[in-house]
Amino acid sequence: MIPRYTRPEMAAIWSPEQRFRIWFEIESHAAEAMAELGQIPKEAAKTIREKGEAATFNVARIDAIEAEVKHDVIAFLTHLAEIVGPDARFVHQGMTSSDVLDTCLSIQLALATDILIADVDRLLAALKRRAFEHKLTPTIGRSHGIHAEPVTFGLKLAQAYAEFDRAKARLIAARKEIATCAISGAVGTFAQIDPRVEAHVAKAMGLTPEPISTQVIPRDRHAMYFATLGVVASSVERLATEIRHLQRTEVLEAEEFFSQGQKGSSAMPHKRNPVLSENITGLARMVRSYAIPAMENVALWHERDISHSSVERMIGPDATVTLDFALNRLAGIIDKLIVYPENMQKNLDRLGGLVHSQRVLIALTNKGVAREDAYRIVQDNAMKVWRGEGDFLAFLKADPRVTAKMSDAEIEENFDLGYHFKHVDTIFKRVFGEA
Amino acid sequence: MIPRYTRPEMAAIWSPEQRFRIWFEIESHAAEAMAELGQIPKEAAKTIREKGEAATFNVARIDAIEAEVKHDVIAFLTHLAEIVGPDARFVHQGMTSSDVLDTCLSIQLALATDILIADVDRLLAALKRRAFEHKLTPTIGRSHGIHAEPVTFGLKLAQAYAEFDRAKARLIAARKEIATCAISGAVGTFAQIDPRVEAHVAKAMGLTPEPISTQVIPRDRHAMYFATLGVVASSVERLATEIRHLQRTEVLEAEEFFSQGQKGSSAMPHKRNPVLSENITGLARMVRSYAIPAMENVALWHERDISHSSVERMIGPDATVTLDFALNRLAGIIDKLIVYPENMQKNLDRLGGLVHSQRVLIALTNKGVAREDAYRIVQDNAMKVWRGEGDFLAFLKADPRVTAKMSDAEIEENFDLGYHFKHVDTIFKRVFGEA
Amino acid sequence: MIPRYTRPEMAAIWSPEQRFRIWFEIESHAAEAMAELGQIPKEAAKTIREKGEAATFNVARIDAIEAEVKHDVIAFLTHLAEIVGPDARFVHQGMTSSDVLDTCLSIQLALATDILIADVDRLLAALKRRAFEHKLTPTIGRSHGIHAEPVTFGLKLAQAYAEFDRAKARLIAARKEIATCAISGAVGTFAQIDPRVEAHVAKAMGLTPEPISTQVIPRDRHAMYFATLGVVASSVERLATEIRHLQRTEVLEAEEFFSQGQKGSSAMPHKRNPVLSENITGLARMVRSYAIPAMENVALWHERDISHSSVERMIGPDATVTLDFALNRLAGIIDKLIVYPENMQKNLDRLGGLVHSQRVLIALTNKGVAREDAYRIVQDNAMKVWRGEGDFLAFLKADPRVTAKMSDAEIEENFDLGYHFKHVDTIFKRVFGEA
Amino acid sequence: MIPRYTRPEMAAIWSPEQRFRIWFEIESHAAEAMAELGQIPKEAAKTIREKGEAATFNVARIDAIEAEVKHDVIAFLTHLAEIVGPDARFVHQGMTSSDVLDTCLSIQLALATDILIADVDRLLAALKRRAFEHKLTPTIGRSHGIHAEPVTFGLKLAQAYAEFDRAKARLIAARKEIATCAISGAVGTFAQIDPRVEAHVAKAMGLTPEPISTQVIPRDRHAMYFATLGVVASSVERLATEIRHLQRTEVLEAEEFFSQGQKGSSAMPHKRNPVLSENITGLARMVRSYAIPAMENVALWHERDISHSSVERMIGPDATVTLDFALNRLAGIIDKLIVYPENMQKNLDRLGGLVHSQRVLIALTNKGVAREDAYRIVQDNAMKVWRGEGDFLAFLKADPRVTAKMSDAEIEENFDLGYHFKHVDTIFKRVFGEA
Repeated sequence: MIPRYTRPEMAAIWSPEQRFRIWFEIESHAAEAMAELGQIPKEAAKTIREKGEAATFNVARIDAIEAEVKHDVIAFLTHLAEIVGPDARFVHQGMTSSDVLDTCLSIQLALATDILIADVDRLLAALKRRAFEHKLTPTIGRSHGIHAEPVTFGLKLAQAYAEFDRAKARLIAARKEIATCAISGAVGTFAQIDPRVEAHVAKAMGLTPEPISTQVIPRDRHAMYFATLGVVASSVERLATEIRHLQRTEVLEAEEFFSQGQKGSSAMPHKRNPVLSENITGLARMVRSYAIPAMENVALWHERDISHSSVERMIGPDATVTLDFALNRLAGIIDKLIVYPENMQKNLDRLGGLVHSQRVLIALTNKGVAREDAYRIVQDNAMKVWRGEGDFLAFLKADPRVTAKMSDAEIEENFDLGYHFKHVDTIFKRVFGEA
Repeated sequence: MIPRYTRPEMAAIWSPEQRFRIWFEIESHAAEAMAELGQIPKEAAKTIREKGEAATFNVARIDAIEAEVKHDVIAFLTHLAEIVGPDARFVHQGMTSSDVLDTCLSIQLALATDILIADVDRLLAALKRRAFEHKLTPTIGRSHGIHAEPVTFGLKLAQAYAEFDRAKARLIAARKEIATCAISGAVGTFAQIDPRVEAHVAKAMGLTPEPISTQVIPRDRHAMYFATLGVVASSVERLATEIRHLQRTEVLEAEEFFSQGQKGSSAMPHKRNPVLSENITGLARMVRSYAIPAMENVALWHERDISHSSVERMIGPDATVTLDFALNRLAGIIDKLIVYPENMQKNLDRLGGLVHSQRVLIALTNKGVAREDAYRIVQDNAMKVWRGEGDFLAFLKADPRVTAKMSDAEIEENFDLGYHFKHVDTIFKRVFGEA
Repeated sequence: MIPRYTRPEMAAIWSPEQRFRIWFEIESHAAEAMAELGQIPKEAAKTIREKGEAATFNVARIDAIEAEVKHDVIAFLTHLAEIVGPDARFVHQGMTSSDVLDTCLSIQLALATDILIADVDRLLAALKRRAFEHKLTPTIGRSHGIHAEPVTFGLKLAQAYAEFDRAKARLIAARKEIATCAISGAVGTFAQIDPRVEAHVAKAMGLTPEPISTQVIPRDRHAMYFATLGVVASSVERLATEIRHLQRTEVLEAEEFFSQGQKGSSAMPHKRNPVLSENITGLARMVRSYAIPAMENVALWHERDISHSSVERMIGPDATVTLDFALNRLAGIIDKLIVYPENMQKNLDRLGGLVHSQRVLIALTNKGVAREDAYRIVQDNAMKVWRGEGDFLAFLKADPRVTAKMSDAEIEENFDLGYHFKHVDTIFKRVFGEA
Repeated sequence: MIPRYTRPEMAAIWSPEQRFRIWFEIESHAAEAMAELGQIPKEAAKTIREKGEAATFNVARIDAIEAEVKHDVIAFLTHLAEIVGPDARFVHQGMTSSDVLDTCLSIQLALATDILIADVDRLLAALKRRAFEHKLTPTIGRSHGIHAEPVTFGLKLAQAYAEFDRAKARLIAARKEIATCAISGAVGTFAQIDPRVEAHVAKAMGLTPEPISTQVIPRDRHAMYFATLGVVASSVERLATEIRHLQRTEVLEAEEFFSQGQKGSSAMPHKRNPVLSENITGLARMVRSYAIPAMENVALWHERDISHSSVERMIGPDATVTLDFALNRLAGIIDKLIVYPENMQKNLDRLGGLVHSQRVLIALTNKGVAREDAYRIVQDNAMKVWRGEGDFLAFLKADPRVTAKMSDAEIEENFDLGYHFKHVDTIFKRVFGEA
């Protein structure tokens, strides 16, 4: 989480102020539940709520206390007691630090995920708009980096849309994984705290109660959460890589928006580089890497150890902040992407019709040529084009093995772009529900 | 995938024979759909089906052909043509290798997941049985490896049950992620193949059609799949680690079953080691590690490159076979786990009642002592016990700060085990739906 | 890099102020070399040096410029021009941003490694002191968590010493990997800059010239660097895990120092938890995780792409700061570790001499019993002890298979602790060069 | 380790036959050392050596025994006893399984590394030959995928040479890390075995004695080993990625050798895909992934646990076999790479001299134009070329801001390719020691 790659909205979730505010909410709701159950005076719960809400928690003061007691929640509670007065003794009764910390982390991750989902929505909107804009813009499809057969630029974007639509579903599932609340006391037995307190706090904070906690919320939930973020980041990398490829000098079918005053290189004034896409390629590597320590966090010892904590203090903010930044940057790239349909057409034409080799192959087969023989005939002619010896269509018309089966007109029929786009509507309907 | 850690049922899914059989099914169903659509002769589709079903595919022959053409699907089709005869020219029309390979991988992963889910079911059954058996067996709950407060052994197993219940739900979701079918031809445009062929094959093979493929099924699906397996493996590691801890000489609250004739150590005949649990701890590390290359596979170039293939040829079998083995071994460990309730009690008693410190703290607070003061009073007495200077209860009864507030009887009230177990039924009902 | 886990000395290396200062040094040394070669006026080089050294670089101003030009080095150069005046046009001639950025990163990593090596030295000193202190303190050696045979506590620490001695050697090698300088201009051809400029800057900054750069220093160097940090972190985890095990309630052979006023748990006043060791266990997971994105950074496109940059902006500080913090914390833990020799002895005695089973096995073999038979005899008696049925020595003396071969005195001979320590000096000499 | 990606020479190291043979060597050398020390009869050591050397170890028989005793080394020793007869009781005296297993693993990894180093040597030879062949073949250098300035194809290969030269040095260091021998008995105290036995076996097997083992050789060594392989694999990925880029249809500056009879695509007969490079890109991901479990293996519990074992049984073969295969395939690709210098020239010319923008910038600066102004002048003209509006040289000659400072001849001077190659010899001498 470094300022350069941080958006303030997401950073706010992870600020000490926000954390202490959430801690207070948890403690206060818990106190109210206990008061409701007759376990502490109602007046005390009210005082806690009112004084806490009115106060601004003093981060420096809390840090100073922590430096002495070496325990962050105790430091906070001590500070809270300074604010609340004698009724503070009714705060946190029967609870453990983890009740506060883990429930707080759930809330922070849930809030962060809401932002991530909004990010994906923004990206989806951009992808959809541009996909329809270029629904029938012809471009070459490439496998292995080699020209294969024609597609449309809209199809490329539709693929990305479908992928991020899955990303959204995964984020929603990941949010559900971690949006649980545990107020179960030491080692999770509810010995000192009524399960109804947990139910109350969960409801108040928009969480579901953790069915069985062991002082901590089990970390398989968080592992699943961060692994999901890693998968979403990998999709970010895929789309960013596509743009980097399209912007290559020899390809130049699309380009990142290049603003006035921008400099591509300190040394070479002619440069326009896909630096935003490259940047998020790197950020994707980071988000992905956090999946491993999150998985290593699962096997805590017995009811809990605290080795997960230092990991989460780092990857909680880092993973969400970085993915948020990358998704936003990507949405902006797509939104303002400069598309060059004429270059797409130029590239399409580059191989002299070679991209229609499969159609010729099938046409020959339909004329009764054995598949293996047809393959060899087409490949022979294609390799001559590959070696720069001439034009594919001309070679076919001159090959007696072809002309024995097809007239020139029949051969030419296989060189029609539209043929490849007849199912674009079908695919758009599948992806967008409309075409 | 090494024999030592491989169960035959799972290995069978990944055998060449099974792979070729699935390839044939895909090709044959596709041919039937094309015949239905009038694109190839119905007789041809029938011949393909009948001759293919009757044949045993010759793996060595296919390998030999591949050695020449350097393309596995073409090698298979060549062999199939040898079996089917002239009608073979109607096989694979308008399709690409990826249509076959990717749909086959979906089927293999779906089949593998069915086994993994069955494994988890077996583990869940064992956990449930043992959890109810030890629902009220007292044992010490530990945080940071240090005695905290009492729990029951049944609660430990209930936690594991809840965790693997989540694992099951995740596996079901992961199966859905990868159970898609793509028969969309070169670069996925359906230019040479009717989308209805895909629909037919998908239905016949129990898959859903991939909304938009680009010759390949997008690899974010597989990344999500293998990441999920990594999370499940991490839960395996957690339970295995628990058992390793419980079997430690100084703890010895439970032990892996030790069979007749088994030798713990070649040098030290007295040893009984938790080697099965240690073994699956290592296997969990392996399954987890496969998540990273699976995520790196997502960003294929343009419509597809084939860098994912070598990765999947390795982790497809390795991840599923290894997790299957680990889950089974773990189910066996739990099923036959030797539990020592008397040792659990002995350990519980080890700190002379120190585990009741929180209750005393709360009791003092309830008597009007400020929380901070109560904490200090209890900690003072606890540290004396920690240093081996005597008994916790005795110290409390001798501390005027305590006796000023509570009678001996009131102090003793806080030393009751049952107090901690009053919500075990509540938790069991949450986890198992019954108590 | 979060304040909680950051030491100021290491953080300083990664501050913007320090970065700009290093950039200036590189530019200034380069200018001096160019002046020496007669390519720019000597006066200009002098002015650059003097004005730059006298100035404080204004981070906010540079940030503001970068916001416009979207290029950090150009922003810095623009600010430098404001400081230096017209002679600034002789700065950076024929150089690219990467010449500055990569060489700066080399310097930062080299400085960071110097601190890490000093950290390891401090840890080694603590380990050595405590190892000699407990050279002959008997304790049980454990394999699989199960009592095996006696060792000394000094041996445990000597092992850690040897491991961190290797860590030191690895850090020295890793430093060498990244301490290179590239001032080779666009795409690394030296077209616009004389190789002697690079040689001069390298020497001035304590680096070696990169034999062949391609505008950037090749990232296999950095991958090796961060992978090495991951390995060192894994050794940190090992020693931290050892301490966590030793502090377990049932074992309690050693304990982290527990300061006055410290609170182990907000709920349970009796707790003393190994939280520092747990904390660095988590930090080790983080440092380890950075190895993967560092390796993913290697395959930059052609002469360079900038995807590595965002990764390094994060892991450069994060990996070094976190490892520095963990090593320091670990050195402190070892330094002040509370050791309980009497508990070690108590644990040693726990199995009633079972730990001598191998010696009895060998003694029987020496008396002519076949190894397999001897194993079975010893195992039979050991398992009875394991089941709590009695004392190992007594069982042996009562087993006619044993007494047929050995007198009581001969049996007893095998129950001597000193026997196990006769080579402690040998091992200490190997590790420390002295005993 | 699947046959498709396995070379027999490397696979042989990991066969059961080879493993048992190495186990025998270790046991036999140890017996000889004990005989020399007078601890066992010299005749027995001789019998062990002779009968063991004459025998073929029966893998199936050993597996059958292991199925009963559940311990692989005991199974082997039992089988060895069947071969050797009564003197077998002198085998393995005072040793543990780990003495045999760990020393064996050291030998296997050392042998594997010898092959890997030979692989790198073969690759280096191919790189050097092709580098000199194309030392002065002009090609465009690309940063961010965008044309930057000219380089030579030989420089590209020289960079790869330098990188794999580092890879070789790293493999040599990694070999040293793991080439140690431990024969130290239970928990490593030498209680039951003389350190001189270890010294003897180490010398006989070409290893160095592990200074302090704890029954096992410490796993930080293996972590460093596998991390190193991951770094080498990342360099493999880099070079493979370069070739994939060069073979892209729009670039086509080089191509993998395409053999007679090869088929690029089952559907599109015109395809020639860089499938070998793509394949090893995937394999690199796998080798890299093994670094993480290897690092997780370091923190074994106390003197040892066996969780590392299942990991190493998998990654020992998998990492070495896969890297060996990838390195060999890469050497073959380079060796037979088809290079198209005329396409390189065509690509170089594509931007109408734009790649000389930096030279013009510097020339303007030398004429007294402020760097910022010069940058703007050059960028203005470059962006017009970028937009396809015309020729760079022509624009410059028509720009009064340029012509005010330079004559046409002076402008043209900056458009000379040779200018960029004047230091190729310097760089070659740095890399190869010759030019």
